[in-house]
Amino acid sequence: MTQTEKSSEKESPKRILITMGDPSGIGPEIICKALINSNLDRSNLYAVVGVRQILELPARRLEKPLKFENLGDPGELFRKGGSSIQVLEPEGTASFEFEMGRPQATCGDVAFRCITSSIKQALANRCDAVVTAPICKEALHAAGHTKWPGHTEIFRDLTGAETSALMLIADRFRVIHVTNHIALSETPSLIKKDRIVDVIKLASDSLMRIDNRLPRLAVASFNPHAGEGGLFGREEIDEIVPAVQEAERLGFNVQGPFPPDTIFPKMVGGVYDGVIAMYHDQGHIAFKLHNFRYNRERDEWDEVTGVNVTLGLPIIRTSVDHGTAFDLAGTGKASERSLLDAIHVASLLAGQSKKEKESVPNGS
Amino acid sequence: MTQTEKSSEKESPKRILITMGDPSGIGPEIICKALINSNLDRSNLYAVVGVRQILELPARRLEKPLKFENLGDPGELFRKGGSSIQVLEPEGTASFEFEMGRPQATCGDVAFRCITSSIKQALANRCDAVVTAPICKEALHAAGHTKWPGHTEIFRDLTGAETSALMLIADRFRVIHVTNHIALSETPSLIKKDRIVDVIKLASDSLMRIDNRLPRLAVASFNPHAGEGGLFGREEIDEIVPAVQEAERLGFNVQGPFPPDTIFPKMVGGVYDGVIAMYHDQGHIAFKLHNFRYNRERDEWDEVTGVNVTLGLPIIRTSVDHGTAFDLAGTGKASERSLLDAIHVASLLAGQSKKEKESVPNGS
Repeated sequence: MTQTEKSSEKESPKRILITMGDPSGIGPEIICKALINSNLDRSNLYAVVGVRQILELPARRLEKPLKFENLGDPGELFRKGGSSIQVLEPEGTASFEFEMGRPQATCGDVAFRCITSSIKQALANRCDAVVTAPICKEALHAAGHTKWPGHTEIFRDLTGAETSALMLIADRFRVIHVTNHIALSETPSLIKKDRIVDVIKLASDSLMRIDNRLPRLAVASFNPHAGEGGLFGREEIDEIVPAVQEAERLGFNVQGPFPPDTIFPKMVGGVYDGVIAMYHDQGHIAFKLHNFRYNRERDEWDEVTGVNVTLGLPIIRTSVDHGTAFDLAGTGKASERSLLDAIHVASLLAGQSKKEKESVPNGS
Repeated sequence: MTQTEKSSEKESPKRILITMGDPSGIGPEIICKALINSNLDRSNLYAVVGVRQILELPARRLEKPLKFENLGDPGELFRKGGSSIQVLEPEGTASFEFEMGRPQATCGDVAFRCITSSIKQALANRCDAVVTAPICKEALHAAGHTKWPGHTEIFRDLTGAETSALMLIADRFRVIHVTNHIALSETPSLIKKDRIVDVIKLASDSLMRIDNRLPRLAVASFNPHAGEGGLFGREEIDEIVPAVQEAERLGFNVQGPFPPDTIFPKMVGGVYDGVIAMYHDQGHIAFKLHNFRYNRERDEWDEVTGVNVTLGLPIIRTSVDHGTAFDLAGTGKASERSLLDAIHVASLLAGQSKKEKESVPNGS
């Protein structure tokens, strides 16, 4: 393979499939805004799994024209040129009633069908990455889809992934979670050496794709003061220290466990490329404090940056890092910033993934 | 009481007693630097509980002169004018050997004696507030003082306080903790309605002293997503919601429980005056990420702001919010910023406390 071929691969368009999310949330609006945003990478191809009529509501209010067209056959996804955005409508979403801005069963069901359809297309290699708009768990549950505590868990389950981990990423701020959507009292039983090693592997592999070098990872402790030598809990001694040693032995660039309250400002200072967090709020508190800005006068978020990546799946999936924002739905005030970031990260991961796949036959 | 008398009370000097902390840490150095700093409020009176010879080591390296003098009789504390800083040497600290920059029993013992002496002076009303420099728990333990997991717990125990809570404060960023130095797996059993109400009271009372108005408090949930209606734990339903309702009924301005990952950026945005955190790292992760800056090139902290206040004691006690920094000890590079902040907050709390005490006889 020549150098020229390599560079041309790098430039090959990535096929990004966006799910519409909950129809009554801000998903349709931010998708429309992102698709006309001048920061969107035009070298990629974009399509939406959703409902055309719903997407057209916010599209009419845009300052630039945006056209959608229905796609009958999923096999045609990304196959046709033109200026319209292809919309793949999942079965059973042709007609339904809903109100903007509140959790409801009809919307939960449509959101769920968009997710399952996107997974089907990705597993069939009809797209290179799935980017998801926000869903509402209450609506999903109202529609009878009660099995999963979150979006991430649906993707893990329906792709048949053996292990997965949630990464939050905003530029150089990256947190990868060992546990996620569970009661805090249940986390201690899940802080296990093997799981931690798996998460270090997943984190290292995906950040390597983004940074093009072995990432420097720091592992947070579970207990305050890194357990203070066993005085404040034994998870460090029994599980985390052995996991870090094992991961080091396997060649990963990893250190810790460190006290959770100083590890994040050190990452911000450039000491680490990513932090392994032991539980949901350990990572999320740091991430959102660093990347969200609240405007008291307008009583809304000024800035909501950050991308949610599900690591360990057989497909690439990124997501916005905010909810349906029902209070903003239909107002035209929602920001597409996080969705643009999610598309960007999906594109980076997909590009590297393509290079890896295509280089396999010629691999040494 | 006339308006003039009130204002003159406001200006009355506060007697601030500073403990030296661990002799082999950065305590003595930051005390010297703070005492000559132009930002130190000169309307207050300052004295140190410590060892004069140890304080004089960093004092010799200062760009401005600073003199210490020994005080034989604690009854003379703050009684004598002059430009020298009074040093109260606790019994048993006249002579001991130590090395800079490492945990050792001799230093742990001296640090402990400084603490107990400062508490004695404060309980005898020989000072208005105690400000503590950092200690080393390992050294305390080596010296046989193994009963307490932290500085805060020593103050609670030795002042006979029934309840106490740790507040971290840096300007408008304030976090008050329901639980503190314990294993995370032990926190669920301590998240109890009565304790939460007590902490809300302590937080409201002390922030009222600082802000001169009823503070707007937000209570963080214990579980991710505020427990998601019981799906991720029941602490919210069983304990936190009833506590917030009870505190509201008692007249406090309090809301919650809110998801821990969005409550802090909202406080930064000015929506709240303080956050009630359920466990050590919930508050500390947010606080240090917001107030600490790490410098990778120099491999040290550029900025370590923040003050640690023990609420609920019969005395006023504030502390720096950093450790002994053994790696910096003796280098002359330690920053006095956090100590100056701790002195400032102690002075604010002591001023209001004095006004309250003095107004009691004339109270309606």
